[in-house]
Amino acid sequence: MNEPLLALTTGEPAGIGPDLALMRAVEDPFPAGRAPVRVVAIGDPELLAARARQLGLAVAIEPLEAQASVPAPRRGVLPVWPVALRAPVTPGVLDPANGDYVLELLDRALAACRSGRAQAMVTAPLHKGVIIEAGHGGFTGHTEYLRDACGIDAVVMMLATQLPAAMGGRALRIALATTHLPLRAVADAISESGLRRVLVILDTDLRRRFGIARPRIAVCGLNPHAGEGGHLGREELDIIIPTLERLRGEGLDVAGPWPADTLFTPHRLAGLDAVLAMYHDQGLPVLKFAGFGQAANITLGLPIVRTSVDHGTALDLAGSGRIDTGSLRVALTVAAEMALAAPGTR
Amino acid sequence: MNEPLLALTTGEPAGIGPDLALMRAVEDPFPAGRAPVRVVAIGDPELLAARARQLGLAVAIEPLEAQASVPAPRRGVLPVWPVALRAPVTPGVLDPANGDYVLELLDRALAACRSGRAQAMVTAPLHKGVIIEAGHGGFTGHTEYLRDACGIDAVVMMLATQLPAAMGGRALRIALATTHLPLRAVADAISESGLRRVLVILDTDLRRRFGIARPRIAVCGLNPHAGEGGHLGREELDIIIPTLERLRGEGLDVAGPWPADTLFTPHRLAGLDAVLAMYHDQGLPVLKFAGFGQAANITLGLPIVRTSVDHGTALDLAGSGRIDTGSLRVALTVAAEMALAAPGTR
Repeated sequence: MNEPLLALTTGEPAGIGPDLALMRAVEDPFPAGRAPVRVVAIGDPELLAARARQLGLAVAIEPLEAQASVPAPRRGVLPVWPVALRAPVTPGVLDPANGDYVLELLDRALAACRSGRAQAMVTAPLHKGVIIEAGHGGFTGHTEYLRDACGIDAVVMMLATQLPAAMGGRALRIALATTHLPLRAVADAISESGLRRVLVILDTDLRRRFGIARPRIAVCGLNPHAGEGGHLGREELDIIIPTLERLRGEGLDVAGPWPADTLFTPHRLAGLDAVLAMYHDQGLPVLKFAGFGQAANITLGLPIVRTSVDHGTALDLAGSGRIDTGSLRVALTVAAEMALAAPGTR
Repeated sequence: MNEPLLALTTGEPAGIGPDLALMRAVEDPFPAGRAPVRVVAIGDPELLAARARQLGLAVAIEPLEAQASVPAPRRGVLPVWPVALRAPVTPGVLDPANGDYVLELLDRALAACRSGRAQAMVTAPLHKGVIIEAGHGGFTGHTEYLRDACGIDAVVMMLATQLPAAMGGRALRIALATTHLPLRAVADAISESGLRRVLVILDTDLRRRFGIARPRIAVCGLNPHAGEGGHLGREELDIIIPTLERLRGEGLDVAGPWPADTLFTPHRLAGLDAVLAMYHDQGLPVLKFAGFGQAANITLGLPIVRTSVDHGTALDLAGSGRIDTGSLRVALTVAAEMALAAPGTR
């Protein structure tokens, strides 16, 4: 069998996505001790060549036919599935004329994953506003676009990082029960049906995408001190505890609800495969702190494997070289882990 | 001048407060490299002697008259200001008959601090329920009791820890704009007047208690991504941003509002003296993770210095020896730092 192939969409062409792909291409092809994978970037070869010149990077851009074999990684070489820009690009300057180009990158990667040509897609950042301006008024982001393109109802956002060696060096994975909501809307968004859906997706994908036989999941309370027996909010008693009890009865290993401030200590995390936080700022600050800002965003519940960097287009830094590929490295590593664990690849 | 004196209340007698004081007494009197301080425990000498026997600890309990000089720390010696239990204690078993005893410990420590006899008070955990059962129906905790006893309106809860060496080894301090509220009540609790009061107390006490000439404070947004320009909530635009602008005009160095998930990264924290989180679970998970669970709780805004352990009475562990003095060590260290920085002591 060939090594799994990761399709890397280079994202908004005026942002740092092309830079990330190029800078990654001159680093070690894959971190020592990791299984080998192949990586193909998706983007405009001329754009990539021009950006490499601007960055002063010696990277050979190798455009490939769709059916050509993707070679094993070599330092200084970037295999590319070509997609043509719609308009010339100035780094840092958004142009709605290229909105369809960005979506075509996603469509190419998705099609490759669905056909089995690629085993995972990894996405560099795009810019929502410019895609909306390009005439796609309903566009709200990568995750929703892929969800809708796959014709499914619900996905789960999970972030993952690697703890520093001093903290055990293992993976820290935090999934979210709600994502981008105003804080005042969070409590009403916690329902038994929603929580059940998220936990089933999380459990299922930890099994099939991470090869974990019986995922151990801890769930945060919604309120401080997990409601302190109802004194600080009733959602734990009314919704979260009954939902977890039912899921336990169905064989899921879901502990909690636990107070978020005492759950994220190294000795507690040591026994867990993932934590479910109830909302964005309950779970992500500790994850990004723990990983020194090097985290990957993973979409669970899709029929394909998708990971992403956890940062934006950084328009002001495009072409500067003053960026860090850390999050992309984590996104590639996690995608490889997921691709290798997925049924049919091993 | 004598070294600053820290008065340590031993808290609920059936809990681990006595154990903490005794176990601390057999450790190094004070961590190397720190300024010397003296520590006096407040509690029942018979209780402490009995608990020491149960723990198998060779600690000499030295009851002191109120006006007697408190000796310099020696390993294996615990100077005590005696307060008599109201009823015999069985470890792990609460007894409302001793509710007044617990409050008397606080009153003694507070009086010593207010008279200048002690320079700080450090509190071991108490149990709210048993004090309420003892007839103090309005009791809601240490912090509010001390606030009311000092006749002031508002205090600020701040937690502090020491980052691991791999993360810079410096202090991480996180204060809270709101504390123990159900999550659904948080958004409505954020007001310009409340936020101003909290930030003024925080700034003032970082100056007078920590000796920081111009405290650099970063403020979290309430909503994810700090509201993303109003798309994810309007409290940043309507309340937080205008409040910070006014405070900057008055000379405070208050940055933000920043997204909580990107604020807590080591390189951002490096330039800050404190972070203000808008609510409990936005700030405390990262703090307790960062400090490996060893954090101190600090009450700002009081006319005295008060720190506390950040955990509860752990009734089931009283007398077992299976506890960790880490949080107490941090609480004593921070109290010493604050006492030494306070006007009049250096």
